[in-house]
Amino acid sequence: MRVAVLGCGTVGTALVRILQDRSDALAVQSGARLEVAGIAVRDLALERAPGIPRGLLTTGAAELVADPSVDVVVELIGGTDPAERLVRNALELGKPVVTANKALLASPEGVALRSLAKKHGADLLYEAAVAGAIPLVRALRESLTGERIHRVMGIVNGTTNFILTKMGEQGADYADALAEAQALGFAERDPTADVEGFDAAAKAAILAGVAFGYDVASADVMREGITAIRAVDVEFADRLGYAVKLLAVVERTGDDALSVRVHPAMVPKSHPLAGVRGAFNAVFIEGEAAGELMLYGQGAGGLPTASAVVGDLIDAVRNRLAGTTAPSPDRQPARLLPESELRTQCYVSLQVTDRPGVLAAVAKVFGDNNVSIRSMEQEGYAGEAQLLFLTHLTSEGDMRSTLAALSDLDAVERIGGLMRIVGEPE
Amino acid sequence: MRVAVLGCGTVGTALVRILQDRSDALAVQSGARLEVAGIAVRDLALERAPGIPRGLLTTGAAELVADPSVDVVVELIGGTDPAERLVRNALELGKPVVTANKALLASPEGVALRSLAKKHGADLLYEAAVAGAIPLVRALRESLTGERIHRVMGIVNGTTNFILTKMGEQGADYADALAEAQALGFAERDPTADVEGFDAAAKAAILAGVAFGYDVASADVMREGITAIRAVDVEFADRLGYAVKLLAVVERTGDDALSVRVHPAMVPKSHPLAGVRGAFNAVFIEGEAAGELMLYGQGAGGLPTASAVVGDLIDAVRNRLAGTTAPSPDRQPARLLPESELRTQCYVSLQVTDRPGVLAAVAKVFGDNNVSIRSMEQEGYAGEAQLLFLTHLTSEGDMRSTLAALSDLDAVERIGGLMRIVGEPE
Repeated sequence: MRVAVLGCGTVGTALVRILQDRSDALAVQSGARLEVAGIAVRDLALERAPGIPRGLLTTGAAELVADPSVDVVVELIGGTDPAERLVRNALELGKPVVTANKALLASPEGVALRSLAKKHGADLLYEAAVAGAIPLVRALRESLTGERIHRVMGIVNGTTNFILTKMGEQGADYADALAEAQALGFAERDPTADVEGFDAAAKAAILAGVAFGYDVASADVMREGITAIRAVDVEFADRLGYAVKLLAVVERTGDDALSVRVHPAMVPKSHPLAGVRGAFNAVFIEGEAAGELMLYGQGAGGLPTASAVVGDLIDAVRNRLAGTTAPSPDRQPARLLPESELRTQCYVSLQVTDRPGVLAAVAKVFGDNNVSIRSMEQEGYAGEAQLLFLTHLTSEGDMRSTLAALSDLDAVERIGGLMRIVGEPE
Repeated sequence: MRVAVLGCGTVGTALVRILQDRSDALAVQSGARLEVAGIAVRDLALERAPGIPRGLLTTGAAELVADPSVDVVVELIGGTDPAERLVRNALELGKPVVTANKALLASPEGVALRSLAKKHGADLLYEAAVAGAIPLVRALRESLTGERIHRVMGIVNGTTNFILTKMGEQGADYADALAEAQALGFAERDPTADVEGFDAAAKAAILAGVAFGYDVASADVMREGITAIRAVDVEFADRLGYAVKLLAVVERTGDDALSVRVHPAMVPKSHPLAGVRGAFNAVFIEGEAAGELMLYGQGAGGLPTASAVVGDLIDAVRNRLAGTTAPSPDRQPARLLPESELRTQCYVSLQVTDRPGVLAAVAKVFGDNNVSIRSMEQEGYAGEAQLLFLTHLTSEGDMRSTLAALSDLDAVERIGGLMRIVGEPE
């Protein structure tokens, strides 16, 4: 079986190495010897890691995909263009595709690729696109396929979990924790995709498809990042028995709507997700019969991601040899819960001028907007104070109007990060 | 597709209910409507849970299996006889079998059933036999099939984890924690299979097969239970930063031998397994490319176990419709590490007469047997004392001769539970 590898970054490099080093074992597992037919790159002159056969490098990705001797295509380019076109071409030729491309899969074009794969009887497999090495997609697609899933919650972005872990364990401020993550290579120089939750939102959209059978795109995902979270917020959460995590949440709400969202969350320390530290990922699944499940592991990195690609590749080869494809039930568009109707318990911190009457004015705003306060703490500094609020269950709409009204108050200097309590025993 | 259900205990009952309640969804997922052809029981007169159609009950298990209208067999009887015979009959007729029977699978007969299934082109699926609802077997068999696994360590027995959690969190003694587990239905009246590690040993044997491709039977598994562990041992471990867990461990050692064992272990609190509380199960996997993975969930109970059975059932039906079977690579007998060659750091507690010279005599025994002591603590009571020892890396053989020599000392009144340190960062 001849494999076209598109892209030769850290994952592509690790993949080519595994295919070389484990050649015999992989042949036994997949039923055919896997041979790299070519590696499509942008720049032939670039220096490559040792072990990458230079003779296999090519800038002709489209030609490689179309090469009649190529049986399977692995797409590791990322982004939507030209990845989308190459994947589409492969599927139209009936060639199975393995991809780690979350951005593509969660785009409207990605949603269309699933139907295209089905039409042409070719596998489109993407275990590596969510939570790296964690065998999550197959667990949901096969083991839990008979299960009615109520909720899936995941720490699916290692960068933000690294930052939040630093803030929680060392009292670091956001900027310092981000700088450390960048120095260690856990965060990009431009961290926007991670810290603003775009990466997690794409994964949430993919999870909505795999766990619930609904087509959801990144753009449909309610999304809040971690940039407004401060050390004081994490400390407060800690004092109350919570860890702060950026969670991707997909859950059925009443009336069979689906809430798909990414936001900072306060998770009780007794919850298994609270113990997931550093750059690790974990996905917590609540099913009707299976109960609570959690899958934990490395969510990024060349080798772990390549490991997931290899699992899919073996699957694709076995299926091709057997003349079948992996199960791929039809999907429907999701009925998404309107953001304003989401109901959660919220935490918000306010920096206010420290003068008499401010608390009363602030509290009045909450009350006027139907938000009931569960607890409040005040921490004073010279001339200004932090007000830390925890609400009872409140609708997103009411919370939004509260925040809008608060920002109009003269005494409110800054509205800090919003966090929602998730995973509390019921 | 007509399904024969053998056994109607908690899992069988839950399975029949799921097949009824989720009938439409399961038909979509598996590609065929699943119909219960019959439910084999021992006693027709016994009262059954509501929802179990009495007309489907039969005492003729063998006839049900042989019924030409039956397409798939689910074996939930447990034990080896008559389960082995019924499973064998089904496979010889080319009918796929789904089973939750760990005792059968880890017996020499169970090992033979795998080959039989292969010979007759019928699936033999057993996700429910290890760690209940956790999608572990499929993850190892499919997602991680290309992975070189170094070690698998699991909390695979909920009863003992419940007992050890109680001892750790509430300082309870073993007998009290066991009594509570029995009162709550987490432990049987005769708890031997759980507390002596027999149940975990069967699961360790199955894991050796699925994760490493070796045929191992229960009887080959080195096994120690938790009955000798006392509150003082768990306290000591806690003070040193460890949680106590009964672990099933399967690992490659030097020279490509396999160590398969079950014993109480001290796990660093920072390790993900340490946070697995109560009756939950979790399996920690260390792979060459995937790195560290953990799968967590409910390891027992009617619904969670039935959920795993349903996943396998859908798989079996899909495969039958497609004319294929799940991958089932050939296995070899394992070269097992001789117990005496196992090398671990050990903890042992001794109850000794509190008089001068005892510590020196005890320490001399360790030294004479090549066991190097890492730390020692003495806790005195009236007239007697507890000596708590932690060793450096030592061979099992040396540790065994140390314990034998210690038991010959007059001053040693009781040798407490042996625990091994596992999962420490290297």
